[in-house]
Amino acid sequence: MSQNQLDTKSQAWSALFSEPMSELVKRYTASVFFDQRLWLADITGSLAHAEMLAAQGIISADDFASIERGMAQIRAEIESGAFEWKLDLEDVHLNIEARLTQLVGDAGKRLHTGRSRNDQVATDVRLWLRDEIDIIGGLLNELQLALVEIAQQNVDVILPGFTHLQVAQPVSFGHHLLAYVEMFSRDAERFSDVRRRTNRLPLGSAALAGTTYPLDRARVARTLGMVNAAGEAELCQNSLDAVSDRDFAIEFSAAASLCMIHISRLSEELIIWMSQNFGFIKIADRFTTGSSIMPQKKNPDVPELARGKTGRVVGHLMGLITLMKGQPLAYNKDNQEDKEPLFDTVDTLKDTLRIFTEMIGGQLDPATGVKAGGITVNAQAMEQAALKGYATATDLADYLVKKGVPFRDAHETVAHAVKAATAHGVDLSELPLAVLQGFHASIEKDVFDCLSLRGSLNARNTLGGTAPAQVRAQILRHQTRLA
Amino acid sequence: MSQNQLDTKSQAWSALFSEPMSELVKRYTASVFFDQRLWLADITGSLAHAEMLAAQGIISADDFASIERGMAQIRAEIESGAFEWKLDLEDVHLNIEARLTQLVGDAGKRLHTGRSRNDQVATDVRLWLRDEIDIIGGLLNELQLALVEIAQQNVDVILPGFTHLQVAQPVSFGHHLLAYVEMFSRDAERFSDVRRRTNRLPLGSAALAGTTYPLDRARVARTLGMVNAAGEAELCQNSLDAVSDRDFAIEFSAAASLCMIHISRLSEELIIWMSQNFGFIKIADRFTTGSSIMPQKKNPDVPELARGKTGRVVGHLMGLITLMKGQPLAYNKDNQEDKEPLFDTVDTLKDTLRIFTEMIGGQLDPATGVKAGGITVNAQAMEQAALKGYATATDLADYLVKKGVPFRDAHETVAHAVKAATAHGVDLSELPLAVLQGFHASIEKDVFDCLSLRGSLNARNTLGGTAPAQVRAQILRHQTRLA
Amino acid sequence: MSQNQLDTKSQAWSALFSEPMSELVKRYTASVFFDQRLWLADITGSLAHAEMLAAQGIISADDFASIERGMAQIRAEIESGAFEWKLDLEDVHLNIEARLTQLVGDAGKRLHTGRSRNDQVATDVRLWLRDEIDIIGGLLNELQLALVEIAQQNVDVILPGFTHLQVAQPVSFGHHLLAYVEMFSRDAERFSDVRRRTNRLPLGSAALAGTTYPLDRARVARTLGMVNAAGEAELCQNSLDAVSDRDFAIEFSAAASLCMIHISRLSEELIIWMSQNFGFIKIADRFTTGSSIMPQKKNPDVPELARGKTGRVVGHLMGLITLMKGQPLAYNKDNQEDKEPLFDTVDTLKDTLRIFTEMIGGQLDPATGVKAGGITVNAQAMEQAALKGYATATDLADYLVKKGVPFRDAHETVAHAVKAATAHGVDLSELPLAVLQGFHASIEKDVFDCLSLRGSLNARNTLGGTAPAQVRAQILRHQTRLA
Amino acid sequence: MSQNQLDTKSQAWSALFSEPMSELVKRYTASVFFDQRLWLADITGSLAHAEMLAAQGIISADDFASIERGMAQIRAEIESGAFEWKLDLEDVHLNIEARLTQLVGDAGKRLHTGRSRNDQVATDVRLWLRDEIDIIGGLLNELQLALVEIAQQNVDVILPGFTHLQVAQPVSFGHHLLAYVEMFSRDAERFSDVRRRTNRLPLGSAALAGTTYPLDRARVARTLGMVNAAGEAELCQNSLDAVSDRDFAIEFSAAASLCMIHISRLSEELIIWMSQNFGFIKIADRFTTGSSIMPQKKNPDVPELARGKTGRVVGHLMGLITLMKGQPLAYNKDNQEDKEPLFDTVDTLKDTLRIFTEMIGGQLDPATGVKAGGITVNAQAMEQAALKGYATATDLADYLVKKGVPFRDAHETVAHAVKAATAHGVDLSELPLAVLQGFHASIEKDVFDCLSLRGSLNARNTLGGTAPAQVRAQILRHQTRLA
Repeated sequence: MSQNQLDTKSQAWSALFSEPMSELVKRYTASVFFDQRLWLADITGSLAHAEMLAAQGIISADDFASIERGMAQIRAEIESGAFEWKLDLEDVHLNIEARLTQLVGDAGKRLHTGRSRNDQVATDVRLWLRDEIDIIGGLLNELQLALVEIAQQNVDVILPGFTHLQVAQPVSFGHHLLAYVEMFSRDAERFSDVRRRTNRLPLGSAALAGTTYPLDRARVARTLGMVNAAGEAELCQNSLDAVSDRDFAIEFSAAASLCMIHISRLSEELIIWMSQNFGFIKIADRFTTGSSIMPQKKNPDVPELARGKTGRVVGHLMGLITLMKGQPLAYNKDNQEDKEPLFDTVDTLKDTLRIFTEMIGGQLDPATGVKAGGITVNAQAMEQAALKGYATATDLADYLVKKGVPFRDAHETVAHAVKAATAHGVDLSELPLAVLQGFHASIEKDVFDCLSLRGSLNARNTLGGTAPAQVRAQILRHQTRLA
Repeated sequence: MSQNQLDTKSQAWSALFSEPMSELVKRYTASVFFDQRLWLADITGSLAHAEMLAAQGIISADDFASIERGMAQIRAEIESGAFEWKLDLEDVHLNIEARLTQLVGDAGKRLHTGRSRNDQVATDVRLWLRDEIDIIGGLLNELQLALVEIAQQNVDVILPGFTHLQVAQPVSFGHHLLAYVEMFSRDAERFSDVRRRTNRLPLGSAALAGTTYPLDRARVARTLGMVNAAGEAELCQNSLDAVSDRDFAIEFSAAASLCMIHISRLSEELIIWMSQNFGFIKIADRFTTGSSIMPQKKNPDVPELARGKTGRVVGHLMGLITLMKGQPLAYNKDNQEDKEPLFDTVDTLKDTLRIFTEMIGGQLDPATGVKAGGITVNAQAMEQAALKGYATATDLADYLVKKGVPFRDAHETVAHAVKAATAHGVDLSELPLAVLQGFHASIEKDVFDCLSLRGSLNARNTLGGTAPAQVRAQILRHQTRLA
Repeated sequence: MSQNQLDTKSQAWSALFSEPMSELVKRYTASVFFDQRLWLADITGSLAHAEMLAAQGIISADDFASIERGMAQIRAEIESGAFEWKLDLEDVHLNIEARLTQLVGDAGKRLHTGRSRNDQVATDVRLWLRDEIDIIGGLLNELQLALVEIAQQNVDVILPGFTHLQVAQPVSFGHHLLAYVEMFSRDAERFSDVRRRTNRLPLGSAALAGTTYPLDRARVARTLGMVNAAGEAELCQNSLDAVSDRDFAIEFSAAASLCMIHISRLSEELIIWMSQNFGFIKIADRFTTGSSIMPQKKNPDVPELARGKTGRVVGHLMGLITLMKGQPLAYNKDNQEDKEPLFDTVDTLKDTLRIFTEMIGGQLDPATGVKAGGITVNAQAMEQAALKGYATATDLADYLVKKGVPFRDAHETVAHAVKAATAHGVDLSELPLAVLQGFHASIEKDVFDCLSLRGSLNARNTLGGTAPAQVRAQILRHQTRLA
Repeated sequence: MSQNQLDTKSQAWSALFSEPMSELVKRYTASVFFDQRLWLADITGSLAHAEMLAAQGIISADDFASIERGMAQIRAEIESGAFEWKLDLEDVHLNIEARLTQLVGDAGKRLHTGRSRNDQVATDVRLWLRDEIDIIGGLLNELQLALVEIAQQNVDVILPGFTHLQVAQPVSFGHHLLAYVEMFSRDAERFSDVRRRTNRLPLGSAALAGTTYPLDRARVARTLGMVNAAGEAELCQNSLDAVSDRDFAIEFSAAASLCMIHISRLSEELIIWMSQNFGFIKIADRFTTGSSIMPQKKNPDVPELARGKTGRVVGHLMGLITLMKGQPLAYNKDNQEDKEPLFDTVDTLKDTLRIFTEMIGGQLDPATGVKAGGITVNAQAMEQAALKGYATATDLADYLVKKGVPFRDAHETVAHAVKAATAHGVDLSELPLAVLQGFHASIEKDVFDCLSLRGSLNARNTLGGTAPAQVRAQILRHQTRLA
């Protein structure tokens, strides 16, 4: 009985099993090749558990010291790449525990007292995801700052605001970029909500029903930083729920999907803006690729790939939802399938946020202290485009309303004017005053102020509007918020 | 020009249009048959807008009075069913505005000053959804209360806790039900987070760029109750984002999908528990149906249908995400497709929550003041099932650990004991002491205490565990929280 | 016992039930409000069943005559709107059967001999879907014909072919449209595959296990046209599978999703092409709408809405898959949720195909016999755009290859030439021969032939290429195929 | 110009690019780490292309010989693991081509004549997927054979057929297993349909518009086995469509999702059947795992994991659909995201089919020539369960119908009998004849024949029914079909 049965687990799970797992089954059911990334969370969780076991007198101080020593060595081995991961040991937990027992003997076998892999893996994933959410929060901050910076440089650059991809009204390019800041700021809010529900401790729930050992779960929670704003320990309150809940993974994936949806919208715009018929912006060469056949090509690979990766993240969300649908309590092996989609979602999101931050805002040149290499704005092309499509028609209608015409009537009057201008191939501002007066007698010379792009822009000076004064106020608000 | 062109919109959108919409296109693009449910939000939003326009001197007090009067009549007409919804008027907004102008003339035409359908519809949907979220919050509360009540009646009823649908350890049926209370309580948290981001005002963003009128957006927000916990007006801060953002709809659908996932898990369990080989519970006849061919049948239609409706809600989430993927700014007509999935999700969720509350907890009999007709628990069948599958094997291992055996060794020892008991077709508790001692010399007579179901249950007495004392503490916590 | 218990089903399913369904449950579980659209399939299936029962001597000829007479009346009632659908009778099947029994007495009660609602509903849905697939096949044909016709008118119109939305190589607009013909033609193939697997008879499987009556299932299949190409009856071969299989619904939804993906791609292009910076095409006013605030707007609502409706159809696919995941055999009530997504998918797809056919190809004017009102092509804008972006750079590389330069070297040479041309703001064809020769000595005067748009086009003269000769050949092939 | 710029691609795509890709971007956009699995398809496709180029005189026979020689060496290098895959060379195509040019010089550079990576990658994926579909077809065949074999051994084993997981009617366990044979047989049909549309040649479409070289595309198709049943070359007929079409990947994923849905249903049943309260079957120990905490556990990990992996495959389908939604023509970089989901779907499906075949049917022992280790059936437990729940109630109703009672009346009569039997806690067959006659006077002694399980089974003797004679006929049909 002194043998460590973990090493021979593949030969049989326990005395109950009459045959070992087949190689095919081992490979099918093993998770160690993807869940090894949880190693640090696993060690951290185990140390917090062991510390509490010792504090509660469930294991001896010596055992705890041995566990600490063993874990320090395992950590060093993993970090150096010397650790040997074994498929036969199925997952990250058994790999680490088996090695610990090799290193420190019975103390290692005592570590699992009062816990099960069911609550252990739930704890590991939560710890890991919480820290990843913090990293993602930082990346979202940087992306917002990059957008705000480029917005600040382009407050006075006018591009056509589109609805239905048809020219609608002139807007500030800075204002346009700030729309994305709003989106990514909501994403950050959402991730923060997800973090709150992720940062709760399942450990102590054991396999499904709690444990017979006098654990101090709150102590473990505090050691692991699982506390709320008021400093109270955050514990999963029901053992059955604790081991079978994967809400946090689905919630996280939903938040990540929304974030990628925003990335996909921005990507779509970047791609359209870079198309030769628009020519509004360029992205730096290092974010583009050429063609193996067409020598003139410089393709916006990064935005396209990011738009494509939206599918990947959305697919993972759908996969996770399908996974959990109709599962009875408590833990079922299906749940092991939560990890790969979650891991890939985190990786995809982090890479995408990093690359967009640099693609939009450029990189800091350590030599000059100046950021360079972000998007290049072609203000002239934008303004030229804004002059198409009668972008100031609404301004003319508003002008008439201020002269006392009911809005609906003003709207119809301007439609007639646009029709006439179209027939002559000119902009509204190019129609002579007399012609304009033919559509409504109240039109006077000052009408041309409101028919200019800049006049139109300045006029939309209410909170959230595109007037440069408003845009500058928003930039200040964001800078304060993100500092 | 004095004609109200809204009535003739179908003949041409404005002077610019050379032909009317075809009937097929009208039907394809119209939303009035599903968005008319927004009518109250539309009127409420319009009145808040008009009140502000008057306060800012943009329309006269007389105009506002006329609008109020007209809207009161329209409200009465809609409530009485007298209002005539017209396909030609495309959507709820134009239907109401056209009628208003019929009733009050130019004042009606002035209502649309400083707004667009783009910010109007976004405001309507947010107002409507916010109120639905409040209703859903109430329904989630009632469902939790029903579960807590049945849990309280069944604290001492023991059923086998399953992992992998294999008997794992005995658990309190009350404890099992409380796992679902945790899930629905997280759902309520999530809906509350969604509410916070839904309850923000887009109005004042106009078509996409803001407006030239000196609106007081904060005033409108306050009138509509769009304020945060600190009482500050909650405004969408960027006009382009405000009109094109549908995050709140996707977020809501994701929260609803998770809630339905929980419902699907509970349904799965109810269905299994009702199967003759389990026979753990019955649901009242009014939630079941028979068969057109098999006279003996009483089928759990409601849980099955609810499990099926999970697909419906998840499908809507997928639909909304697909809808928004890759859309350039700002408003595009694609967005009109947000409504039907959102409406159906709300309806499905509310119906399901209501019906589950009654199916689990029964109905209050007004005559007796007593609740009746909830699930019927067969405690004997549950306990009988818990006696299968060596549910107290872990207790024996824990017993050995307390005698100083390392957990991993104890685990293996018990496996041998289970193997022997299986061979004899008896439970561990039915093995003679001498036989048990053959597996480990440290086993003494007190081992039989830990091998009983009730002994096992009582022993799991840490926070979140299944010991009746813990379950009662949780029930109290929930009752306080939900009161 | 002579009473027709169907009328009182809501009071109790059978003697076994101690209470009637609650109103809430009735509404939750009833399907009659959406499945009544199956009425014709239901009657058709019932008549085929009854005819066979009579032929087999299971019911009398008189009973069959009564059933035929009753069904004829029911059909007339439904068509005239006189039929009274009752929620209490739950679904289309019970509504029709109850009415039949009212009309013809015991013969009506005998109709259900040897069948169950489980195989009945599966038969109804399959019959209905098969006929809808045939309609969709016809609509796909018409859409392809419309595309081919416009392609034929535009074989010689050149637009820039894009990859990555960057100008790549000149292509024929006719060729571009034919790409969509390929897609819709694959869709038609897929629907035809789905039809094959849909057109199989479940009837005769009864509730789940077959029936004790000597049915002639092949006779029913033949009556219903459920035969394969060889004229053999197509029967579901396993009763458990027959009543629980919903593969055909999922398959259909997958095919519909792909078709909508194609529609979404075409829509995306139409929207981009209509944007002022492209201006490649116009769609007729009756497919566009204006803005309530911007008087100049003419928005491509139909393509946008169709792009949005892709989400709807994809959502239904996801819903159906989620629905079926993890269901044990045989029929479960979850399956009732297959209908609404299926119905809505069919409706959405048919409407979309119809509207696109007319939007692309126009309508036949019965007066003139001429089609009018399809898309308007701005050939000049297309060609102008093709002159941007060095669309003939590949042609220059190919030119060099023909002079013996390895392709990879030619590619690099042309990149240098493009760089120089960009620096001078000119097209490759505008560089003097001497300058071109500076990049490679083998360049001669004939280079300018390959640098022209039309030269480039004509040169791609292999099967599937964009050369007008190839495009014309394809048009002929399609016309023959679709005739 | 003699340098091979492919080696330095990372420094710059061509002379046009002013800076190399950043490492982050390289990693983000590179596909070589996952698309290297296409190497054999890539080489095969290249050789077919080169052979045709030589046959058409576009390259010399010497060049082709060099290419053949180089490719043979590359193949050997890859197979031996000696090939050095470089991230800088982005993808499998450039890695192989760069190495080829190193090995054979200019001939290697000429290989890319008349093709582009756009048509090359589409060809590679189609070739690879076609061969995987063939493997999957074989695996589906084996799984069906395993099911048929176990069905054959269990034709006379009776288990309760369930609807709504409530006992419905007795069925043969062999019949039940054959339901899954039907499902997997439909899957095989679907994959065969997908294969037909996959096995078409895009090569020759070049970047998007065709090529200027006189290619013989049909020759390449024939070399690659891309021919239809009539032996005709199957070519993509439109170059724009050919390079941007990913229908085949989506179609394949939809077929794979349906197959996994069937696996999930079978898994659900295996899990329920293995639960102690059912105890219908056991799977061999090597497909189960134990628990780290509960020594008695033997968990059905494989069916659970397979049920969970359904989510994974469905997620990939949704990811692919999202990916393609709204993409304009022709190739966009988004499409690169098609590979990982497709590869993972293929791997998951193949592993799952293999493991289920062995888990159900066991393994051939090479020593004995006997298959062993498949599922163990507990016929007694199944039959015992079938005796619960009044499984023969329908038989009693059918009995009455044969006595002339209309079915609906018979149904109600039996409901009364079941009610009485339930009250006495006995089965219908245990009610005395006199009592039965109390429910209907026409009941005679022979009623007990139809009330036995075996009598009920034998009576359902129509095509597709559960009578052993029918089941045996189906087994024969399947054996013939699958041979």
